[in-house]
Amino acid sequence: MITVILFDIGDTLVRAAAPGTPVAALVPEPLPGVVRTVAALARSFRLGAVTDTAVMTEADVRAALAPTGLADLLEVIVTSHDVGAAKPDPHGLLLALERLGVGPEHALFVGDADVDEGAAAAAGVAFARAGTGRDLAAVVHTVLTERLGAFEAARRVVAPVDVAARRDAVEHHDQLTKPPGALGRIEALGVQLAAIAGEDPPPVPAPAAVAVFAGDHGVLAEGVTPWPREVTAQMVANFVAGGAAINVLARQAGATVSVVDVGVATDLGPLVPQGSPGFLARRVRSGTANLAVEPAMTPDEARRALDVGAEVAATLAAGGARAIVTGDMGIGNTTPSAALIAALLDRSPSEVTGRGTGIDDEALARKVAAIERGLARVRPGADPLTVLAEVGGLEIAALAGCIVGAAAERVPVVVDGVIAGAALLVAHALCPEVLPYVVAGHRSTEPGASAVLDHLGLDPVLDLDLRLGEGSGACLALGVLEAAALILQEMATFDSAAVKDAR
Amino acid sequence: MITVILFDIGDTLVRAAAPGTPVAALVPEPLPGVVRTVAALARSFRLGAVTDTAVMTEADVRAALAPTGLADLLEVIVTSHDVGAAKPDPHGLLLALERLGVGPEHALFVGDADVDEGAAAAAGVAFARAGTGRDLAAVVHTVLTERLGAFEAARRVVAPVDVAARRDAVEHHDQLTKPPGALGRIEALGVQLAAIAGEDPPPVPAPAAVAVFAGDHGVLAEGVTPWPREVTAQMVANFVAGGAAINVLARQAGATVSVVDVGVATDLGPLVPQGSPGFLARRVRSGTANLAVEPAMTPDEARRALDVGAEVAATLAAGGARAIVTGDMGIGNTTPSAALIAALLDRSPSEVTGRGTGIDDEALARKVAAIERGLARVRPGADPLTVLAEVGGLEIAALAGCIVGAAAERVPVVVDGVIAGAALLVAHALCPEVLPYVVAGHRSTEPGASAVLDHLGLDPVLDLDLRLGEGSGACLALGVLEAAALILQEMATFDSAAVKDAR
Repeated sequence: MITVILFDIGDTLVRAAAPGTPVAALVPEPLPGVVRTVAALARSFRLGAVTDTAVMTEADVRAALAPTGLADLLEVIVTSHDVGAAKPDPHGLLLALERLGVGPEHALFVGDADVDEGAAAAAGVAFARAGTGRDLAAVVHTVLTERLGAFEAARRVVAPVDVAARRDAVEHHDQLTKPPGALGRIEALGVQLAAIAGEDPPPVPAPAAVAVFAGDHGVLAEGVTPWPREVTAQMVANFVAGGAAINVLARQAGATVSVVDVGVATDLGPLVPQGSPGFLARRVRSGTANLAVEPAMTPDEARRALDVGAEVAATLAAGGARAIVTGDMGIGNTTPSAALIAALLDRSPSEVTGRGTGIDDEALARKVAAIERGLARVRPGADPLTVLAEVGGLEIAALAGCIVGAAAERVPVVVDGVIAGAALLVAHALCPEVLPYVVAGHRSTEPGASAVLDHLGLDPVLDLDLRLGEGSGACLALGVLEAAALILQEMATFDSAAVKDAR
Repeated sequence: MITVILFDIGDTLVRAAAPGTPVAALVPEPLPGVVRTVAALARSFRLGAVTDTAVMTEADVRAALAPTGLADLLEVIVTSHDVGAAKPDPHGLLLALERLGVGPEHALFVGDADVDEGAAAAAGVAFARAGTGRDLAAVVHTVLTERLGAFEAARRVVAPVDVAARRDAVEHHDQLTKPPGALGRIEALGVQLAAIAGEDPPPVPAPAAVAVFAGDHGVLAEGVTPWPREVTAQMVANFVAGGAAINVLARQAGATVSVVDVGVATDLGPLVPQGSPGFLARRVRSGTANLAVEPAMTPDEARRALDVGAEVAATLAAGGARAIVTGDMGIGNTTPSAALIAALLDRSPSEVTGRGTGIDDEALARKVAAIERGLARVRPGADPLTVLAEVGGLEIAALAGCIVGAAAERVPVVVDGVIAGAALLVAHALCPEVLPYVVAGHRSTEPGASAVLDHLGLDPVLDLDLRLGEGSGACLALGVLEAAALILQEMATFDSAAVKDAR
């Protein structure tokens, strides 16, 4: 288990100074995104640096790095000047580990040069290659994924948003040819996009990718919906064929649709042709157990479903997605969603349980009763993973993983509906740092959805009375989100347009 | 002044029957849109038909036309069989006019053939050429525009929406692979688009065209806004140069922006280059008078501004626009807007007057006082044109004309904000039939805007706290409107996708 990450400094964390630059003249320039990455890793790892410099002591390096914020994040800094041996000699690495009291098998060294790799090999420490052409977050993310799985790796690399870019966007808005604040929510969304991207103006969050996670639910045995279980599989086939609402809306938005079988109960073989583009077979189990009478799944299955979601987010981002829309399909899935919301927000099931696609009073009573029976097994204050396994759903777990995965990739993730809301609550419980990456696309009519939004302080972009799921409301919000970036990219300023500013 | 419109029937109103078709076998098929056009004209004109048929009497023709609804709209029907003379003999036309008690100088004859034109010439009646390749509404609209001006012509041709297409769209939605009603407002918008277009699925309402009408306001003398009057002209230049918010949002939506000077007070010469694309010089006067102390404009100026708006809508539709977005620019124009809303809804100025781009309590008090002084000149129950002239604005009048003009062209018109709201109220007062063509794009934060929406029963698509004007909120709603059409065009049905319908 890796508990310590050590970094080389020059061309790994900051742009290397030209040889011969006097120590007093050093103005370290962090490589793009690096400060956020190191800040993220500091939550889960002890951090240090081992750097070759013949002229600087640890104190010199700390003083030079202080303006970047990096010095405070590095528990130990060892220089070749201090230790009297330059990499590839392992002496510096070993001293850093000695000072941390950790053995080499628990450390990862990240550097840009062959001498870094040589030192790591000599010290018996794992190595990852960074450098000016590579994104430090991606490099570390890859290694952590191999060691910890996709979800745990993503959780550890979710970075704080960029406060400087956020401030730049706020000030930029006030220079544009409009009264201050006149673009309302569009301005707030633009600021959020800048904070996520780390630059102002932010890039347009396009193309987007919709990930629809599908799963079935044993709680159907309780009569919580009139729709038969088979419809989940039939709708998966409809998604793959491009005929569902989310396909139409994604095409309009220029977004791809990926359909992920994370827990469908029906054999999809006869319905989904082999090798269908956009279909991902990632089934963890064939539907959950009936949460009213037993745990919906085991904690290990929940973890695997979280991994599926995080893996899908990483794959979509690697494929060029600049925004991720969470979608869901699963007959009966408003029941586990309400159960999760009740448990995680400590609310009574009757408060947060709605009519889903439209059930009558009797079915609603059965739904509430099923949730109450399930929650009777969950002790107050149980950890989120236990709650997820007891009363959740496979697609909900995968959605939670996808939200964390998107945040790890620093792309905005657009959610809607009560199923994604429950997943967001799980994601937030496991990784609170995801919140600034989340855009609430649409206000669902389900009471549980509003409970989540209120709890997290999210204000949805749209309110169009949708109650479909699939990510439909989130997909409809993409145009508004893109507009928010375009406003900052393209609008004239008072100065540039020679418009008199009344303020 | 034309008071009577007479139509040929075969290939003018209905597809001509094959020669020799037995009378009993006639199943008249109205040409596309014709029933709606005749229904619209029946509001303002007395209507009749003069048809060459050797075998049918008026009673036969009325019986044959009865299923189409046309028979009830035609006050007189004269056949060549009844009158013993076929066109180009004028006998039939003259008999129809005699029965209506109207002279030929008050009539227009609409037919598809040379014999129709010959009969009209012989009878001394104005003629317009219709036919299977021509849209009857457009033909009549053109003649009426020449005779009555753009606004009055548009007002007379605004047609009822297509109830059959509306019903088809409602039933269509229930066949799509989703729970009934699950797409909420998207479904209602799709139904509206089908009713406007007269077909289901409706065409996608794209490309859209934004028309930004600009005018200045004498009421600035009352200190109702901190922004100087010159900013109207500077922003017109900004629109023409493409740097304003509406330009950014229109580009995103694939919409054009036309900027119409209907009443700017400043000389635009130094600001807007000669021949700038998208700029229309249609100035009726250089800013209004101060509505607090005298009529903002004369009734004739109000009429001319209404004509500008209707003309622009017709031009945009002729250029291919399939939706029209109303935009506005005019420093101080929330003041006349609030005055119009107060007058037309019989509300107190303090109830419907807001802070516009953000004024303090003292400026708000001056604004309310200015409106009260203006409204003191307006007697209760005054006709809408008088109210518009007394306390309105030139760009507001043009917006009202644009709304009526868009409805006349059977294209949806997307409005937002308090200025367009005031204009919509004027348009609705002058032509209530516009309402089904209107989409409220965005809920403005101005109290007057909500008063208008509530009065007209409109529910805005978006609520993003915008308070900019320019048509920005309406433009942002275009994507949702287009989605509504695409859903009906592209979604699979339960049958086509082999998805089990739980109902």
